[in-house]
Amino acid sequence: MPAGRPNTKRDFDGNPPSPGSQSALRQRNQQRVVGVLTGGPQTQAELARQTGLSTATVSNIVKAMVDAGLATTAPTTSSGRRALSVILNDNGSLAAGIDIGRRHVRVVLAGLNYQVMQDEAITLPLGHCAEEGLDAAEQLLDRLLLKAGVTRSSVLGAGVGIPGPIDRRTGTVVQGAILPEWVGINILTTFGERLGFPVFIDNDANLGALAQVTWGPHGSVENLMFLKVGSGIGAGLILGGSVYYGHVGITGELGHSTIVEHGLVCRCGNRGCLETVASTSTMVDLLSRRADGPISVDDLLDLVLAGDTAALRVIDDAGLALGKAVANVANLINPELVVIGGPLTSLGNILLEPIRRGLQRHAVPVVGESTTVLMSALGDRTEALGGAAVVLSQPHLHNV
Amino acid sequence: MPAGRPNTKRDFDGNPPSPGSQSALRQRNQQRVVGVLTGGPQTQAELARQTGLSTATVSNIVKAMVDAGLATTAPTTSSGRRALSVILNDNGSLAAGIDIGRRHVRVVLAGLNYQVMQDEAITLPLGHCAEEGLDAAEQLLDRLLLKAGVTRSSVLGAGVGIPGPIDRRTGTVVQGAILPEWVGINILTTFGERLGFPVFIDNDANLGALAQVTWGPHGSVENLMFLKVGSGIGAGLILGGSVYYGHVGITGELGHSTIVEHGLVCRCGNRGCLETVASTSTMVDLLSRRADGPISVDDLLDLVLAGDTAALRVIDDAGLALGKAVANVANLINPELVVIGGPLTSLGNILLEPIRRGLQRHAVPVVGESTTVLMSALGDRTEALGGAAVVLSQPHLHNV
Repeated sequence: MPAGRPNTKRDFDGNPPSPGSQSALRQRNQQRVVGVLTGGPQTQAELARQTGLSTATVSNIVKAMVDAGLATTAPTTSSGRRALSVILNDNGSLAAGIDIGRRHVRVVLAGLNYQVMQDEAITLPLGHCAEEGLDAAEQLLDRLLLKAGVTRSSVLGAGVGIPGPIDRRTGTVVQGAILPEWVGINILTTFGERLGFPVFIDNDANLGALAQVTWGPHGSVENLMFLKVGSGIGAGLILGGSVYYGHVGITGELGHSTIVEHGLVCRCGNRGCLETVASTSTMVDLLSRRADGPISVDDLLDLVLAGDTAALRVIDDAGLALGKAVANVANLINPELVVIGGPLTSLGNILLEPIRRGLQRHAVPVVGESTTVLMSALGDRTEALGGAAVVLSQPHLHNV
Repeated sequence: MPAGRPNTKRDFDGNPPSPGSQSALRQRNQQRVVGVLTGGPQTQAELARQTGLSTATVSNIVKAMVDAGLATTAPTTSSGRRALSVILNDNGSLAAGIDIGRRHVRVVLAGLNYQVMQDEAITLPLGHCAEEGLDAAEQLLDRLLLKAGVTRSSVLGAGVGIPGPIDRRTGTVVQGAILPEWVGINILTTFGERLGFPVFIDNDANLGALAQVTWGPHGSVENLMFLKVGSGIGAGLILGGSVYYGHVGITGELGHSTIVEHGLVCRCGNRGCLETVASTSTMVDLLSRRADGPISVDDLLDLVLAGDTAALRVIDDAGLALGKAVANVANLINPELVVIGGPLTSLGNILLEPIRRGLQRHAVPVVGESTTVLMSALGDRTEALGGAAVVLSQPHLHNV
């Protein structure tokens, strides 16, 4: 390791988050236990059965949760024998998830029992500066706290998603972000100080991936890619059960795979990137040429669902290119599941079919056949939910 | 999980090998301790300093190693204070690494202290059937054991590398292997039974990756790709410190990334795969056209090192294509290091330079700049050493 290089094995809160660390494993296991308990009290034996964890592991997790004030135990009987019932405490603490996009801010508030209590989005002006975006997020957060009848002191922390790559060595948004106005800004220091509680920042696609295994129906999937297709294209990876960050934290930059050798110039400076073929901006540009003025993504969705031939063709070509990129990913890391997110999820099979076709066409056969591609079931809330999940997965924050 | 699908979270020996599991972490930590001890006895405090592990972790590992007969402790003094010296035992047990290629078998024998005691390769006829390859491996193994003055009963196990993808659900070589004669064969049952000790089978590139972090100079790298460029092209991944296997075990199939949209038909059934552009078979084919007869890979190396213009051009084009594929990998998983292996490693910068150029050309800038590309320093022994490393990383085998 070169002298002077920051230790990338610690996250910004000082915790070792690397996949493979015992603390990451323990957090995941605790999440599984909490996930079962949100359905109501359970005995430890039943928790072990439903989570697949050993009874010793469940017993340790329950003990730690009781010590942290997260859960209470009470004697009960199960099948006529004495047992210990575990009940999730709701101590009023909340986790905030904040999703900042090119044109919106969304805030969700969730309890320790993983129940979403507040959820609201507002529109931002295109080309807003970072300061405006953070102001809007802070105001929306305070408004939702007021609606929930609590103060900032009840917030354990906020997970903030940004639509751009973040260099974990410096904590700053790097060149290539969909928000050029944000490049070089350290959100942790600019935002964390004024909120007064711990702030975690991550790429929005990473948060989307975490949301899929935390709030979505894919909690048992160990290796998953969340592919967000919007005005930018980026992916988040769950590998070995944890969010995967790689060497400097810039992963899943699938939008900048070269798809067309001498294609259009991309905002990243390269040519023929996947984004120049399959982003919603490209689709909208293509279809705006024959319209009176520029159309919106909503117009695009309407055209496709109305069966417009050109719109269907644009979606099909984009889907095939996405499928080719997914095939290269699948050939490399062989995920069990690829979940598509972003504003096109409502298209369902119209977009999934060409993606699957491109995957089968370009993947090694066994890999293509064993890779499932689905639409995200979490809608617009995916990234904000992932932000809240980051906070809820930090057990040391729960002990307030 | 669909009913009836085999549990892919256990390896063929019944152990949970997934990255992120506590046993994988523990094995890696034990390897680090053993790695330091191969240099001679050390105190526990010194082991903690040199490995970066906590003193409690070192103490637990040492205790387990003493219990397993792997190490002995003796009182000593360090800086004038009483301390415990840890000495690696050599109980005569050996690990075998077997690398089976398209035209060769190599066997290495290594002691528990990770010292290589025997190493030999023999040539196989092209198109040999699986039975012939396994016969040759068995005979070579027995010859090396005789030279080492030990019997099969001293062998803890053998790690066998095969140049093709292996479906971990069934333990068989799948379609697309460089050895079509091996497809569908379960080497574990055909080979394991007659050797009389545990056999582990893996893709050769996976073993090459493991060798880099076990025997090579890259023990501290958490995220690494080993890219083998030969008559086939395949990669092995170390992610979060462990070999990464994905969903069904078929990872690193970089040779079948589509590089030329309407390119040559590949042996996998697709078109324009990286292998059709950058494998040694392709290079040899290209250069054989102007020769009197087919040239060999050794001839290719001679031509390049002699400065032959056509040979240099072929290497440069292949290197650029490899660099483009590496860029897509780097954009996705952001490895710290890419190590190139296979018969072209002696070309050094002549091949590295176009690979690095292709990487910079196609990667997101921050990713391209932070990804190191090097030649393997382990030579032809890489894959066989990886095979031995698999055996040595199974602590339960050591207690013989």
